[in-house]
Amino acid sequence: MTNGHIDIVSRASYLFDEVVVAVGVNKSKNRLFSPEERIDMLTEAVREFPNVKVDGFTGLLTTYCQERDIHAIVKGLRAVSDFDYELQMAQMNSSLADIETVFVPTTPEYSFLASSLVKEVATFGGDVSGLVPDFVRERLAARIDENRRKGDQ
Amino acid sequence: MTNGHIDIVSRASYLFDEVVVAVGVNKSKNRLFSPEERIDMLTEAVREFPNVKVDGFTGLLTTYCQERDIHAIVKGLRAVSDFDYELQMAQMNSSLADIETVFVPTTPEYSFLASSLVKEVATFGGDVSGLVPDFVRERLAARIDENRRKGDQ
Amino acid sequence: MTNGHIDIVSRASYLFDEVVVAVGVNKSKNRLFSPEERIDMLTEAVREFPNVKVDGFTGLLTTYCQERDIHAIVKGLRAVSDFDYELQMAQMNSSLADIETVFVPTTPEYSFLASSLVKEVATFGGDVSGLVPDFVRERLAARIDENRRKGDQ
Amino acid sequence: MTNGHIDIVSRASYLFDEVVVAVGVNKSKNRLFSPEERIDMLTEAVREFPNVKVDGFTGLLTTYCQERDIHAIVKGLRAVSDFDYELQMAQMNSSLADIETVFVPTTPEYSFLASSLVKEVATFGGDVSGLVPDFVRERLAARIDENRRKGDQ
Amino acid sequence: MTNGHIDIVSRASYLFDEVVVAVGVNKSKNRLFSPEERIDMLTEAVREFPNVKVDGFTGLLTTYCQERDIHAIVKGLRAVSDFDYELQMAQMNSSLADIETVFVPTTPEYSFLASSLVKEVATFGGDVSGLVPDFVRERLAARIDENRRKGDQ
Amino acid sequence: MTNGHIDIVSRASYLFDEVVVAVGVNKSKNRLFSPEERIDMLTEAVREFPNVKVDGFTGLLTTYCQERDIHAIVKGLRAVSDFDYELQMAQMNSSLADIETVFVPTTPEYSFLASSLVKEVATFGGDVSGLVPDFVRERLAARIDENRRKGDQ
Repeated sequence: MTNGHIDIVSRASYLFDEVVVAVGVNKSKNRLFSPEERIDMLTEAVREFPNVKVDGFTGLLTTYCQERDIHAIVKGLRAVSDFDYELQMAQMNSSLADIETVFVPTTPEYSFLASSLVKEVATFGGDVSGLVPDFVRERLAARIDENRRKGDQ
Repeated sequence: MTNGHIDIVSRASYLFDEVVVAVGVNKSKNRLFSPEERIDMLTEAVREFPNVKVDGFTGLLTTYCQERDIHAIVKGLRAVSDFDYELQMAQMNSSLADIETVFVPTTPEYSFLASSLVKEVATFGGDVSGLVPDFVRERLAARIDENRRKGDQ
Repeated sequence: MTNGHIDIVSRASYLFDEVVVAVGVNKSKNRLFSPEERIDMLTEAVREFPNVKVDGFTGLLTTYCQERDIHAIVKGLRAVSDFDYELQMAQMNSSLADIETVFVPTTPEYSFLASSLVKEVATFGGDVSGLVPDFVRERLAARIDENRRKGDQ
Repeated sequence: MTNGHIDIVSRASYLFDEVVVAVGVNKSKNRLFSPEERIDMLTEAVREFPNVKVDGFTGLLTTYCQERDIHAIVKGLRAVSDFDYELQMAQMNSSLADIETVFVPTTPEYSFLASSLVKEVATFGGDVSGLVPDFVRERLAARIDENRRKGDQ
Repeated sequence: MTNGHIDIVSRASYLFDEVVVAVGVNKSKNRLFSPEERIDMLTEAVREFPNVKVDGFTGLLTTYCQERDIHAIVKGLRAVSDFDYELQMAQMNSSLADIETVFVPTTPEYSFLASSLVKEVATFGGDVSGLVPDFVRERLAARIDENRRKGDQ
Repeated sequence: MTNGHIDIVSRASYLFDEVVVAVGVNKSKNRLFSPEERIDMLTEAVREFPNVKVDGFTGLLTTYCQERDIHAIVKGLRAVSDFDYELQMAQMNSSLADIETVFVPTTPEYSFLASSLVKEVATFGGDVSGLVPDFVRERLAARIDENRRKGDQ
């Protein structure tokens, strides 16, 4: 979770009446944090937005949306390569369940923020303050440290 | 005005409480139809959407939005080259007036519909039914015919 | 194998005298179906095109083409990210063996169809009818069910 | 007409039984050469390919193709920005007249050759040998010289 | 001239021993400012960089570079569409005169700054402070005002 | 290491006073050659450039640059998909350590050369001469042969 994600949540919160941040709990391998931990951190990070909730889902996002009467998916767009993949997903989701996808551009300052890059920087001891919320930076450092001690690469 | 535009209006109408289709009346050169004619045709075309109005504006779109307390601009996205330019506009508008831009992908069937292409096809006698609403097709044919008679190339 | 693939085969069948659908049997890991099963399904799916054969190959595609006196490779193009990678492959193949690559755009309706996405949707119980041929949908469902029972994956 | 165009014609000549190079005579403004001159030069340039003819057309390319029983349009692809526009045209043409478009990548050495760039270079006295056929280079120089004398900028 | 341009000049000044900002004086139509005025404003704007000079050139940039023993051209890159065109130019220049082109990414904050957009915003009375240097903003406003009085544009 | 890499080194050597080719020794899994072997081969390949050294680094590239007082990172750019990722990295590195990134376009002839493609071609017995230096081709063939004998896939 980077400041770029929070920027998108903040825009969604401004644009729509109710917003759910949906955390996929399927493909949790190779992640530093468990789905529960990620939901916890997101909940903490979006506390200031009263119309935003965080939730986990399994299976297809479209099924989750249909069950909760959610009409639209909001995605952040940073770069052209994002766009290509996200357009494909959007058209697939529209074909599966008549669910709209709206794209919101990230603020230019965060256009280079990818979670994988932030994780790599943090792993090699780089300073990620300004890129993620402070409490995330601390938990990230603690987890990386913990993994290192376990000899867990 | 193509079926692609109407597709985007229909999605905006579904996503938001109130939608204004804003027709820029500044750069009206090289157009087949005057701003008034375009507003007329759009009004006709979006009649089925009760929460959609059509309006003209001069000057900056952000000024128009601020004066009318409009918080977000909806744009259709077809292709990567659209995206690049529209992202630039979105960030400029956000920097000028704190107005959000949300991008809505066109339905795949209309992804190749550009007004300029439709106009070119119609000019050379190609069949544009299915690409624009029927009443637009008729007005387009009439105008092209009229221009041809005037010797206006 | 999606309806997008069959769309490309149908276009190739229309454009060229003889068409071979070449199935790479090298990198078969992480696949739901074995090379033989994929060849079987493709053969079934292209039965209606009399000038299309299905074949498997190992090693380099250019070597396969040279051995069979094949002059051109036909690839479907959906999106810009496809294009970048495929252009690289095309120029490599041209440098290796003087084999032309021609790109055929998919029909817009199938532009969002990626095998990996279809597989993911099917895995989570989504409805893929309309995205793949009916008999593929059934075999896909059967295989996913089978894998689930084996506790596999 | 650059060496890049001839590269594409040569590939089309190799791939298909009969090839027609169709020169649009509609939008001839701002061109250094008239349609007749361009047809002349192209005819000269493709003389070595026995299955290639050069022809002019007015109106829609799809109408021209239908009248001559032409089933496919061959286009060269250099870069991503080409692709976006050409894909749009291809899908429009397919929707108008069931005519296939196949894309052929240019050889990497010519990937930067755009007619407009070559014309600009020649206008400012740059050396375009290696970029266009020799006889084209000479006619280009002669025409630019002629225009300069006429005070025609 | 925007803050994005100055950002690129500042990076070039840091990377190279000597930097010349070369202003093309060929295609000066449709410009708000004459080449002399643009050279003046640029000179003012880059005064803080001791190793940067501003100069005008006519004809080909590569000829200019060769005459002054300049080995490399520095270009700012904002977006993918920039990249495509600039890559083409770079390869053309390299083919004409063995001159290297190096691309420097703009700072994310300025990635949306295009001169044409800034000019359009200023023309319609939008606030461009923060987008261009203060003295440019004033001269821009004065010129637009002047043109308006002349009934020009 | 392909001829494309050497092309970029040669351009960097021409543009800058001192150049270090920095080989990351972190993510060495799935590589045919060990970091030491890669450093060896690179040293051999750049011998002709007196101002170029080869070095290995662990951790973050920006940390390595800061410790050695290196001000800029030079990257080769082949295609749009390169650009998107590299721009992200460049902005991240600039945010971490005020280190400039300059992009140098590869020569068009090498624009399709990706290490992974070359490795794949060599693995299947394709001829990679002209794509990599001769001594690399030999070591590549030897290593692939060796791995095959070990039954090491």
